[in-house]
Amino acid sequence: MFGLIDHVGVATDDLETAIGLYEGRLGMRLAHRETVDSHGVEAVLLDVGETHVELLRPLGEETAVGKFLARRGPGLHHVAYRTDDIERTLEELKETGIELIDAKPRTGIRESRVAFLHPRSTGGVLTEIVEPAAGH
Amino acid sequence: MFGLIDHVGVATDDLETAIGLYEGRLGMRLAHRETVDSHGVEAVLLDVGETHVELLRPLGEETAVGKFLARRGPGLHHVAYRTDDIERTLEELKETGIELIDAKPRTGIRESRVAFLHPRSTGGVLTEIVEPAAGH
Repeated sequence: MFGLIDHVGVATDDLETAIGLYEGRLGMRLAHRETVDSHGVEAVLLDVGETHVELLRPLGEETAVGKFLARRGPGLHHVAYRTDDIERTLEELKETGIELIDAKPRTGIRESRVAFLHPRSTGGVLTEIVEPAAGH
Repeated sequence: MFGLIDHVGVATDDLETAIGLYEGRLGMRLAHRETVDSHGVEAVLLDVGETHVELLRPLGEETAVGKFLARRGPGLHHVAYRTDDIERTLEELKETGIELIDAKPRTGIRESRVAFLHPRSTGGVLTEIVEPAAGH
């Protein structure tokens, strides 16, 4: 069903400091930066081989990541698994009884197609499914 | 410095239900199961391509994962990055000012060599460095 962990999402209220940590100290290459209005975040992707770290700064307190930060502070926010056919994967997950936050794929960072699964049905882990755009 | 995300660690108080979720519903192959006394956990590795999910059930309330569960409930516990030379990586991290929980590598699951970085210096993310044993 899944080819690889695609990325981990990390919530932060200070994107520049987080970039300094991941790029400057942990030696990851900054690959992409984008404001994803539909998800309420400014996001940065850094490469770890074929996988990524996705830094997430909320655009406001009322966004999902803003509420997460207020409740839990900065840290691991979600994990994303890669698929090459997101519609089929969502069908399969639904059939096994997984509760979907997104019944249909949405556009995510770098023109990927993404959907989130509800942590209620995934042991407390906010889980994302990603079909990367061609070339990524 | 890092070749790939090696795994995400997921804390659970019910390992069998978590295995049912990851193996049965998310379709991941159960690759390994081991009680790691030095880390205070019973742990299960599932394959996601070359990466893994590591399920962690604490052996007691006073273990690190036991305290995490009491404080935050089940969910994402840590992320681990893969290296092929853990001593060199720890040296490099120390030089950049990262605070190490383990100054020297310890033996982790499946005879890997591991070290943890302190979340105080990694933006609230408990971060592990892993040098897998030969063949994994």
